[in-house]
Amino acid sequence: MLTNNRLINELKKNLTPDNVLSTIEERYVYAQDATNTREIKNLPDAVVFVDSIEDIQKVLATANKYKTPVICRGAGTNVVGACSTEHGGIVLNFSRMNKILEINPENMTARVQPGVIVGELQKEAEKFGLYYPPDPSNLAVSTIGGSIAQSSGGARTFKYGTTKDYVLDLLVVMANGEVLKTGSNTIKNATGYNLGSLFIGSEGTLGIITEATLKLIPQPECKKVIMAYFDRIDEAVKAVNSIIEQRIYPTTLDFMDKNALQTVEKFYPSGLLCDKDAALIIEVDGFKAAIDYQKDIVVSILQECKASAIQYSNNEEDYNRIWTARRSSMGACAKLKPNVTTDDMIVPRAKLPELITGTRAICEKYGLTVCMVGHVGDGSIHPQIPIDYRDEDEYSRYKKAKSEMYELTAKLGGLLSGEHGVGAAKRPYISKVVNSTSLDYMRQIKKIFDPNNILNPYKIF
Amino acid sequence: MLTNNRLINELKKNLTPDNVLSTIEERYVYAQDATNTREIKNLPDAVVFVDSIEDIQKVLATANKYKTPVICRGAGTNVVGACSTEHGGIVLNFSRMNKILEINPENMTARVQPGVIVGELQKEAEKFGLYYPPDPSNLAVSTIGGSIAQSSGGARTFKYGTTKDYVLDLLVVMANGEVLKTGSNTIKNATGYNLGSLFIGSEGTLGIITEATLKLIPQPECKKVIMAYFDRIDEAVKAVNSIIEQRIYPTTLDFMDKNALQTVEKFYPSGLLCDKDAALIIEVDGFKAAIDYQKDIVVSILQECKASAIQYSNNEEDYNRIWTARRSSMGACAKLKPNVTTDDMIVPRAKLPELITGTRAICEKYGLTVCMVGHVGDGSIHPQIPIDYRDEDEYSRYKKAKSEMYELTAKLGGLLSGEHGVGAAKRPYISKVVNSTSLDYMRQIKKIFDPNNILNPYKIF
Repeated sequence: MLTNNRLINELKKNLTPDNVLSTIEERYVYAQDATNTREIKNLPDAVVFVDSIEDIQKVLATANKYKTPVICRGAGTNVVGACSTEHGGIVLNFSRMNKILEINPENMTARVQPGVIVGELQKEAEKFGLYYPPDPSNLAVSTIGGSIAQSSGGARTFKYGTTKDYVLDLLVVMANGEVLKTGSNTIKNATGYNLGSLFIGSEGTLGIITEATLKLIPQPECKKVIMAYFDRIDEAVKAVNSIIEQRIYPTTLDFMDKNALQTVEKFYPSGLLCDKDAALIIEVDGFKAAIDYQKDIVVSILQECKASAIQYSNNEEDYNRIWTARRSSMGACAKLKPNVTTDDMIVPRAKLPELITGTRAICEKYGLTVCMVGHVGDGSIHPQIPIDYRDEDEYSRYKKAKSEMYELTAKLGGLLSGEHGVGAAKRPYISKVVNSTSLDYMRQIKKIFDPNNILNPYKIF
Repeated sequence: MLTNNRLINELKKNLTPDNVLSTIEERYVYAQDATNTREIKNLPDAVVFVDSIEDIQKVLATANKYKTPVICRGAGTNVVGACSTEHGGIVLNFSRMNKILEINPENMTARVQPGVIVGELQKEAEKFGLYYPPDPSNLAVSTIGGSIAQSSGGARTFKYGTTKDYVLDLLVVMANGEVLKTGSNTIKNATGYNLGSLFIGSEGTLGIITEATLKLIPQPECKKVIMAYFDRIDEAVKAVNSIIEQRIYPTTLDFMDKNALQTVEKFYPSGLLCDKDAALIIEVDGFKAAIDYQKDIVVSILQECKASAIQYSNNEEDYNRIWTARRSSMGACAKLKPNVTTDDMIVPRAKLPELITGTRAICEKYGLTVCMVGHVGDGSIHPQIPIDYRDEDEYSRYKKAKSEMYELTAKLGGLLSGEHGVGAAKRPYISKVVNSTSLDYMRQIKKIFDPNNILNPYKIF
C-alpha cells in the first residue's frame, strides 16, 4: 500500500494530477473490459489519461521503477480480457488521443491517434470518396488502437482482409521509452524486417502505439446484401463454395444458425425465418454496372444449392434491416440469462461444418444454449453462450465445454482467434494451437522488447 | 583450406554426395545472383541441393559447427545481392523442392515448396478459377521462396498488395534446426504474435522457409489495359489521382519515362510513341458487365488530364503487346552498355514527381543515362542505369549518384525498397531511411533467431 501511494504520488507529480485517477470507484471502473468475466481479481493501481508521447514516457519511467504493469486501453471493447488488471498496474486511457491527424487523398492514407473511433474514421474517409474496410461489429465505439492491438477483422474480411492489411506505419513507444517508427506511408515496404506486423495483434505487450498511418482504398460505388435460408448448415457452406467457383468475390459471407435467428427474432423482430437451420448473409459490392449481375448469379447459385428462401436488399432500409438483425445477436443472447459470452474460433473453411456441428454437440452435452453467428467465408464462428455466473454447476459445465471447443478447433487445424485476440481469457489454451517452438520465440521477442515485463504482462502466453 | 575440406567432406558424408557441389567451376556459378555487381568478392565453399527438412537440418548442424554462412537460393533472380557469397558459406539450392503440394479450391489455398516458380503456381491456380495476384516481372523464373524472402510485389500491387498479403502459414527451419509453424491455413489469425510476417522480407536471415500456405482469390472475369502518353510526368501523376477520385480501383498504375519508351522502341519496336515525356499503363479488371464502364471513365479522365494519346487493348494481342513493351525495358537498357542495374525506391505517391525529376537530375549531373519505369500507383520507381563497369570514372560517378538518389528518397519520406529487398547491395544505406531504434530491435531479433550468425549474414543491416 505504501509502494502504491508512492507510485500514485509520483504519477501525479510527473503528469497533470487531474489526469491521474486513483479512488477505489475510479479504479473499479477500469478493472475489466467488455469481456464478461466471472470475477474481478484485482484493481489497477491508477488510471492515467495520456495526451502525448511525453506523457507515455513519464508513465513508463515510473512503471519501470516500480516494476508495475502498464495496460493500454482504447474503448475497452475487447472480449478476451486484453485490458484486464489481474496484476494491478497503471491503465493508460487513450480516449483523449483521439485525433484524425490527416486524411491525405493523394496518398490515400489516414494518419490517426490510437483513440480514434473506427466508425468515425470511416465516415471521415467517405467524405473523400475513400474507404477504410475493417469493420469490427463494435465499430461505433471501438478504437483504431484497440483494432491494431487485437488484429481486428469484421464481416468484410473475406474480400478486404483485416486491420493488419491496412496498417502502413506505426509510431510506437517502447518499454524503455524509446520511440520506434516501423515504416513509411508507402503501400509497399521491403526495407528491413517487418516490425509493424509484429506489433499488430501483440495486445499491448510489445510497445505502446501512439500513431498509425493507415491505407485507404477507393470506395466501392454500391453494395447489395442477400439473405438465404437453408435447412442444413452444410448445404449453406456448399453454396459458399459454389459462389466462389463462379468467380464472384463477395465482400461478406456471414451466417446465423437457428438459435441465433430465433433469439434475434424473439427480442428484436426483424422478419427472420425462424424454422430454418441457418441463414447466409452475402454482401456484394462494386460498380453499379455489375451489381445486379453479381446479385443474379449469387441468387441462382443459392437456388441451385437448395436455399429454401432468399431475400435481398433493394434499398438502404432493407440493407440496414438485414445487417441490424445479424449484429443484434449478441444483444439478444444477453436477454436469455444474466451473462453472455462470445468466442472466436477459426478453421480452414472446408472444416467449418465440422466446427459448427461439433460446437453445437459440445454445448448440448453440457446443457448449454449456444447462438452461433460467424463468417463462413473466413471459416470463423462466434458462439454466443448465455450463462448465469452465479450457478456454480453451470459455470463448471461452461468451462469444460470451452476447453472441448478449443480441442475441437485444434483438431480441425484451426486457431483460437481470427480477430479478437487471446488476452487473459484464452491464454491458458494457446498451446493447444500454437507450437512450442513458436511460443518460445514469441517469449524471447517479448523479453527483448520489454525486459522488465511491464507491458500488459500475463496476456497471450 | 583444411577447414574447408573438412566441411565439404562432412556435408558429403551426411547428405547424398551427388547433391554437394564443390569444384571451383560449380562454386563460381553460385557466387552471385541476378544483381549486376561489379566484382565477385568470394566464392561459396559448397552448394547443396536439398530435398527435405532433414537435409536442411543436416546442413545447419554442419554450418553451426564451422560457424559458416548458409545462403538460401531459389532461382537467384533477386537484384540486391541477397544470394551473394561475400563471406563464403554453403549455398542451399532449392530447385528440387519445387512441388505444388496442394491446391485446395474449397479453402482457396495453395500449399507449396519454396522452389515453385511463381508463374507455374499462377497457371495451376487458374485451372481452378483461382488467382495468385503477386506478379514480379521475372515470374516466369522466380520462385515463391524468393518472393517471400524478398517481400516481392509487382505491377498489381496497387489493387492486390504484395506477397506478404498472400502468405497464410509458413514452415520454417530455424538456425538451430527446430521447425517452427507460423499459423494455419485460415485467412485470419489473431492468435499470438505475427511471426509469419517477420519472416517475409527477412531475406533468409531469420530462418529457412521450407513450405508456404498461400491465399488464393477468385479470378477476375476479365481485364483491359490502357496506355496513355503525357507531355509532362507530373500531369501523368495528376491523372492517377483523378482516376482514384472517381472510385476506380485499377489493378495497375504503371509508367515508363521518355528514355524507357525510346530505348524499348529502339531494340524491340512495339509502336510506342517516343516523343512523349511519359506513358501511363493502366489495367482495370473485374466483371465483363463493368469493364467497359471502367475503361470509358479512365479514358475520359485521361483526356481531361491532357493525355496526348491514348491506346487500349481490345484483344489479347493488344494486351500482350503493351505489357511486353513495359517488361522489355530492362532488357533493352542492357543493350546500351555492357552492364545494367535497376533499383527500387518508393515514396508516398504525392512525392513521386519529385522523386522522378530528382533522380533524372542526379543522373544528368553525373553523366549517366537512366531509363525509368515504375508503379505510379505505389509511388515506386525502378531507375535502370546502363553502365560499363570497366570504366572506373563512370563507376565512381555511378556510386555517387546512387548515394544521392537514396538521400533524395529519404528526404521525401520514402524507403529504399518497396519490393526488391535490401540484400548486400543497399545494406550500407539502410540507416538513411530506417531509424536507429528500429535497426537496433531488428539486430536483437536476428540474434535470438540466429545466435551464431550463420543465416545469410551481413545482409539487410
